[in-house]
Amino acid sequence: MVQPVCDPHEYIDELTEAIQLPQGFRFYVDSLTFVPRERPAKPPLRMNVSALISEVKDTTAAGVTTRNRFPGAPVQLTRERLPAGKIQGVVVNNRIANVASPSGYPDAVTVARTFAERFSLPEEQTLSLSTGIIGWQLPVEPMVAAIKALPGREGTVVDFARGIMTTDRYPKVAWNSCRQGPRLVGVAKGAGMIEPNLATMLGFFVTDAQVGQTTLDRVFRRVVDRTFNTISVDGDQSTSDTVLLMANGASGITLSEEELEQLLVPVAHELVLHIVRNGEGTAHVIEVVVRGVSDASLARALGKHIVNSPLVKTAVYGNDPNVGRILAAAGDALDQVDPAGRLDANSLCIHLFDEEVYRNGAFSLDGGRENRLSDALVAASFDPALRGCPQIRENVRITLTFGTDNSDHIPEERVFGSDLSYEYVRENADYRS
Amino acid sequence: MVQPVCDPHEYIDELTEAIQLPQGFRFYVDSLTFVPRERPAKPPLRMNVSALISEVKDTTAAGVTTRNRFPGAPVQLTRERLPAGKIQGVVVNNRIANVASPSGYPDAVTVARTFAERFSLPEEQTLSLSTGIIGWQLPVEPMVAAIKALPGREGTVVDFARGIMTTDRYPKVAWNSCRQGPRLVGVAKGAGMIEPNLATMLGFFVTDAQVGQTTLDRVFRRVVDRTFNTISVDGDQSTSDTVLLMANGASGITLSEEELEQLLVPVAHELVLHIVRNGEGTAHVIEVVVRGVSDASLARALGKHIVNSPLVKTAVYGNDPNVGRILAAAGDALDQVDPAGRLDANSLCIHLFDEEVYRNGAFSLDGGRENRLSDALVAASFDPALRGCPQIRENVRITLTFGTDNSDHIPEERVFGSDLSYEYVRENADYRS
Repeated sequence: MVQPVCDPHEYIDELTEAIQLPQGFRFYVDSLTFVPRERPAKPPLRMNVSALISEVKDTTAAGVTTRNRFPGAPVQLTRERLPAGKIQGVVVNNRIANVASPSGYPDAVTVARTFAERFSLPEEQTLSLSTGIIGWQLPVEPMVAAIKALPGREGTVVDFARGIMTTDRYPKVAWNSCRQGPRLVGVAKGAGMIEPNLATMLGFFVTDAQVGQTTLDRVFRRVVDRTFNTISVDGDQSTSDTVLLMANGASGITLSEEELEQLLVPVAHELVLHIVRNGEGTAHVIEVVVRGVSDASLARALGKHIVNSPLVKTAVYGNDPNVGRILAAAGDALDQVDPAGRLDANSLCIHLFDEEVYRNGAFSLDGGRENRLSDALVAASFDPALRGCPQIRENVRITLTFGTDNSDHIPEERVFGSDLSYEYVRENADYRS
Repeated sequence: MVQPVCDPHEYIDELTEAIQLPQGFRFYVDSLTFVPRERPAKPPLRMNVSALISEVKDTTAAGVTTRNRFPGAPVQLTRERLPAGKIQGVVVNNRIANVASPSGYPDAVTVARTFAERFSLPEEQTLSLSTGIIGWQLPVEPMVAAIKALPGREGTVVDFARGIMTTDRYPKVAWNSCRQGPRLVGVAKGAGMIEPNLATMLGFFVTDAQVGQTTLDRVFRRVVDRTFNTISVDGDQSTSDTVLLMANGASGITLSEEELEQLLVPVAHELVLHIVRNGEGTAHVIEVVVRGVSDASLARALGKHIVNSPLVKTAVYGNDPNVGRILAAAGDALDQVDPAGRLDANSLCIHLFDEEVYRNGAFSLDGGRENRLSDALVAASFDPALRGCPQIRENVRITLTFGTDNSDHIPEERVFGSDLSYEYVRENADYRS
């Protein structure tokens, strides 16, 4: 295993110092302890309550929520309040996801109302989001008390990013600014890989740019599709996935659709890679590139099938350039995602990193190539046990190219995922205990 | 972990003694060593060559092969020869799957021809099947020598079942007989879980019943669909999956379509459960029952999604009755397999074993129920390291019921899979090394 290259304390300090915050946003974090009624005999649990507030009335907002058919109460509340396009404050708890709880919806409303009253925000412009165990009830009373006592401490955006974590390895923050002035910062927590029933991925983007709600919504959906929807850690979207973008206009500068997209894309892409790296037990980031497939959704489905194949994932974890598994996964994926047989399987060429390993229906393998690929896998691996800061390594790049001629003009699709390690199994087998 | 209850030596002896073979079939096994040209520097590998021969000319046969878009050379050869409906002999090698090898097809033909000549069989009524590593070339020369030297020993069907194994835990044989006389024996190897690129599942059924080819083919396809197609170990069908049924009529008794089906189904179902149990690292068999869904393929797709969810699988491995993950997987599955929303998610009721855990949009959980379910999971677990014989335990039964009224008349669908353990990761991360 490669030596860790980061120091958790340095990471937090450097991150906090480096971030250029957009104007007019505040962050608060407090914590509380409670005894879940579903498990009364065990010791109390700790929960963070983290708040994000825009100082500007009628802050414009857009968001995307999970397509899981059993959305949690927070997702239901978000879907009611978001269409009006104005969100001024969000309160987030970790530890319990508030999904399929008998009192889920009224609990979410109570928490949001308490938060709105404490900060004198319009109730209908507040959201209450949750992440944690599915099926348990929110401890509303201690949460109300904690929110009324806010600010426990006024915090930084890094504190907020830590406050919303569950089993995340490290706080995930990315930022960007326009030449013209407006800034944007994004925060995310979780990823399926680590966060089985932690329900699961939350993302918050705040900017002081001035943007109309229609534009904000259109650009955000496009960017989310191009970034968050390209990661697939273990295939299940959670009951609570929510990403939110708030634009308070405090910079006084209006951005065009194109400018907003340029501001947003690098931040969203960086967070997406952080989410994949962040997985408990992740030791490699796998990137599947699909070329020569003009149907982008087909290309992406193919890539996701390969990046989710347990056989490919375990081989990568073992630093084994087992290209046979890639071919087998691709052949199974084609049967499932391209039943009509529109793609020509015979035209497939496979690269692992920059080495061509398969063309014209046959592998070209030898001891030298195997060794080079194995070395490249080792160099791309990081220590799955290290917490507190990201480890940046080269992605394990698997490229599938269909067609040999004239396919260069077709845009390629990329999906990202993680390998499958002992640590993944341990984390997920023992999580609630 | 529960104590092992079986003794490998006893198992083989008892199995061999108990099986009632159909008349007119013979089995041979021999082995050889070779140095793969793709990995010349390492020590030689051992390969078995196993043969199954009907003594009756023009033995009727039916078969089903993988739908993977990169089928191996043996599958190509099988698809050419099987439609004539007559197969008298099959030779099987383990260790190398003969998939995507530059000389794959001619190698398969050469092996089959050598086998046909050795036993004076019509060449077009022979098959050469392979299982093992994808992408490597068959060692044709030593294989030809070994086949010419057969019988190394004339063996039993249990020897054949052992000969075709790769990383299988134990030989898998099941049998049945009709009141009227005809007998049937089935043999299988592999399963995705253990057999990543071992390319993967082979099944052979032989009977001395007399059955016309059209009936044989129709019944076999129906039974394979109801049995083999209900297991999903890690989601990828391999490049080599093949199941074959040979009926040589040596009993002189003709069976009707219904009688053949009754003879075949219990054997196929037993082999299917063996395949799931047999996975390296499997510690629980998971059975998902879907009720109240009139579209059988939709019901099965839903069940497979849940049985393949890494989050459900790891929770089961950890004996954690983490029902939130089941709900999350079901909600994601519905989005993917029922995009039109034909099923009413609000009507879903979930049972784990016999305990109702979710109804009317909410969980009913308490400490007592959690403890009972956890105990049931422990009782259903077996030692994933024990090899040589099967361990039979209760399946971990997850039941999804849609609709509360009038759905009792809809046939239920069942799918089977295995949990996800440390041993799975180890086996699959290190397999080729």
